[in-house]
Amino acid sequence: MSKGLPKRSENYSEWYNELVKRADLAENSAVRGCMVIKPYGYAIWEKMQRALDDMFKATGHQNAYFPLFVPKSFLEKEEEHAEGFAKECAVVTHYRLKPNPDGKGLIVDPSAKLEEELIVRPTSEAIIWNTYKNWIQSWRDLPLLINQWANVVRWEMRTRLFLRTAEFLWQEGHTAHATAQEAIEETNRMLGVYAAFAEEWMAMPVIKGAKTASERFAGAEETLCIEALMQDGRALQSGTSHFLGQNFAKSFDVKFVNKENQLEFAWATSWGVSTRLMGALIMAHSDDQGLVLPPKLAPIQVVIVPIYKGAEDLAKISEKVNPLFEQLKAAGISVKYDDSDNQRSGWKFAEYELKGVPVRLGIGLRDLENGTIEVARRDTLTKESRSLDGIAKYIKNLLDEIQSNIYQKALTFRSENTFAVDSWEDFKTQIEKGGFILAHWDGTAETEEKIKQETKATIRCIPFDAKAEEGTDVYSGKPSKQRVVFARAY
Amino acid sequence: MSKGLPKRSENYSEWYNELVKRADLAENSAVRGCMVIKPYGYAIWEKMQRALDDMFKATGHQNAYFPLFVPKSFLEKEEEHAEGFAKECAVVTHYRLKPNPDGKGLIVDPSAKLEEELIVRPTSEAIIWNTYKNWIQSWRDLPLLINQWANVVRWEMRTRLFLRTAEFLWQEGHTAHATAQEAIEETNRMLGVYAAFAEEWMAMPVIKGAKTASERFAGAEETLCIEALMQDGRALQSGTSHFLGQNFAKSFDVKFVNKENQLEFAWATSWGVSTRLMGALIMAHSDDQGLVLPPKLAPIQVVIVPIYKGAEDLAKISEKVNPLFEQLKAAGISVKYDDSDNQRSGWKFAEYELKGVPVRLGIGLRDLENGTIEVARRDTLTKESRSLDGIAKYIKNLLDEIQSNIYQKALTFRSENTFAVDSWEDFKTQIEKGGFILAHWDGTAETEEKIKQETKATIRCIPFDAKAEEGTDVYSGKPSKQRVVFARAY
Repeated sequence: MSKGLPKRSENYSEWYNELVKRADLAENSAVRGCMVIKPYGYAIWEKMQRALDDMFKATGHQNAYFPLFVPKSFLEKEEEHAEGFAKECAVVTHYRLKPNPDGKGLIVDPSAKLEEELIVRPTSEAIIWNTYKNWIQSWRDLPLLINQWANVVRWEMRTRLFLRTAEFLWQEGHTAHATAQEAIEETNRMLGVYAAFAEEWMAMPVIKGAKTASERFAGAEETLCIEALMQDGRALQSGTSHFLGQNFAKSFDVKFVNKENQLEFAWATSWGVSTRLMGALIMAHSDDQGLVLPPKLAPIQVVIVPIYKGAEDLAKISEKVNPLFEQLKAAGISVKYDDSDNQRSGWKFAEYELKGVPVRLGIGLRDLENGTIEVARRDTLTKESRSLDGIAKYIKNLLDEIQSNIYQKALTFRSENTFAVDSWEDFKTQIEKGGFILAHWDGTAETEEKIKQETKATIRCIPFDAKAEEGTDVYSGKPSKQRVVFARAY
Repeated sequence: MSKGLPKRSENYSEWYNELVKRADLAENSAVRGCMVIKPYGYAIWEKMQRALDDMFKATGHQNAYFPLFVPKSFLEKEEEHAEGFAKECAVVTHYRLKPNPDGKGLIVDPSAKLEEELIVRPTSEAIIWNTYKNWIQSWRDLPLLINQWANVVRWEMRTRLFLRTAEFLWQEGHTAHATAQEAIEETNRMLGVYAAFAEEWMAMPVIKGAKTASERFAGAEETLCIEALMQDGRALQSGTSHFLGQNFAKSFDVKFVNKENQLEFAWATSWGVSTRLMGALIMAHSDDQGLVLPPKLAPIQVVIVPIYKGAEDLAKISEKVNPLFEQLKAAGISVKYDDSDNQRSGWKFAEYELKGVPVRLGIGLRDLENGTIEVARRDTLTKESRSLDGIAKYIKNLLDEIQSNIYQKALTFRSENTFAVDSWEDFKTQIEKGGFILAHWDGTAETEEKIKQETKATIRCIPFDAKAEEGTDVYSGKPSKQRVVFARAY
């Protein structure tokens, strides 16, 4: 149970690892770097998927599915893209096993070697733009607004559950447009969708901005991102949206006849979020007792725990609980009545705290007499006794309040941990303490790299909402026109 | 549009291939044997997924996600299973590419060879039962009722869109139980879910039954299946549910302490349906004009096409259509108003016929005068003029009627193409004509194999609803106690 969960203040990293396992979210598999997403973790991911998918459809996108494999020659076509992903590819070289002639088991059949190796997709620009070649002939075929829910593989050497795994689940949007302007608008629109999802569903405030050139997606002209601050003061990139220019259209020869009857290369965007969001969700809100889930993403929003001795008491309590259960369900609330008799109520309380259930209702014999119920909030760990009259409506409102409170708490945390820093000494001191640092930067990759080498801090983004402000680079002393966001990051 | 679609009677196979492409369901990709599922096809698959997923959850199952890769040594553990899948495996042998030192492009980095090869999952029993080992200790951990939505790869040599592809999408349920009895009940329960889905959602009647030993899933004690009859008289296996006994528990050492405090191996089931169902759906109902979709799975259930010349007429029509559109939407109907001006209404009629939209509403100036609308049914290709009064309710009922009519039509077709056959001569004649053949079988693999060799007919299943009936094997003349279902199959 929560007993023995390491404290965040003592070992944040261990706290995270243990929490992911004990709350039944995920575990490491026997396959190096690949995770098993357990039912409770997957139920949260499904809620995320559903909300995002609705938002994609509301903005005019359709889902489709493209092959898992990318022929090596396709990956090679866009040079920067190839360079970016070549180092961490799972490569399929054969298509058959055969019995081992020298003993037991199976061996790779050398006669079943592929003529061309296939790469397990690390991302799908190459295979998708090779397909778009046949789908796009005229401006009438544009825009093409497609999303894919899929698994991808990047052979990461150091992995952590949800945050960095060799295989992960994600969605990748791939759109084609007739003009640069339209593609840029799409890139922005989808970053907006991600930010809205992070803030409204995950209750996690994010900074929207652009990556520096050195942090861009391999093959992109511009990468936009949302950045969130975790409770240990490190940043987590939570979603990216790329303007790909005509790079992939040129590599895969995707041309269309424009309204002026001229052949032109199409303009591209791609954008994605992944199961990494699960890591962000966990780290943004949870505490030493376990998960804290925003009600909108909680698989169980309300749990009802009876406090009783013996079957007769339970029957009396259930008689009162059953109509309440139905009322809550009818109000669209995901509710569980845990009347199992193999654990005591104290054990159950701790268990649902660990699992982050937003509201716990406790009800015993005394409550039956008084017509009351105990309402416990996971976010504040407070409880109060309330009359059963009108309780369903109260709970409905309470869930909204909890959603908003979790967001506000994270926002306050971020405000308190965002620092405008103007000297290199202060920068070095502050970066050790964590948080977002707003500092001037001279715009060069050289300075960016030196700061990274000396402090492990990276430029998380050039924020959209930064005001123009003359200043000097915190490291080089050269002139700068706005602050950027630095942090150590996951 | 539908112009040029081959006729079913002339070339069924070509008709299918062309229909899949022209109705924008799927296409072959540049990767051998892998398909691209296009947005319209994927929208149907999403509807199938949603309905099935709800049915799985209603029967107590939870979703989870397991790794894409299966280490070779895991696949080897269950011997029959290994044999069954070894011949068609995509094998990952390396995890990095590097620049070609001898020229352009990338080559596989020989220094990044995996110690143990990874197989892209052809199915997940091995990786999942290796995981269950850690999840199952006591009878309290059982039953474990888990489903996964995933992509799988089987290196098929002859592929056809949806019906047989190297990569396909599916769901695979993997459950663990304390007793054989419970596992057998689960195997039956999930076959029932599949049959209900096929009949109620796909409007496709199916025969439920058991596979013969030679047609069982590799590693199963018993394989149950649903079999449907396509319009060309061939059978299509549409879903399977396997009782795996203790085979995988023994191979992966999954033991639990039972209520009597004794260690026992767990009992297993697995069950799956795949994008193959898309092929079944297409072939079960569609005609020479194109797709015929049952309303419950149609991405667009109703399309409204205005018949007009010039913007002024269109404005008048739209004024009438807009409230109707809202009414239909409010009634939970998926409706599209196609007021695009780049195609004539005749073109649109053909296009929506090709796409299988169940109901098409046509409305012109004369209709405005008369207060009428033209209602065209895709299933019967009939149309009638109706008053606009109460039209939303009429359409709602009509969709139900179409759903039921499509099912009845398929059921009638199956009845007319199911034959009880008692002599070998009749068997050989009938099998050339197609259909389900109900014939006596002596129960031996030898006879089954000889019939297959001579006629290409296989035993589709030993049907659950067959009555006991003394008879003699149609081929060997040996005694038999019930008829089984023979057919040529996809």
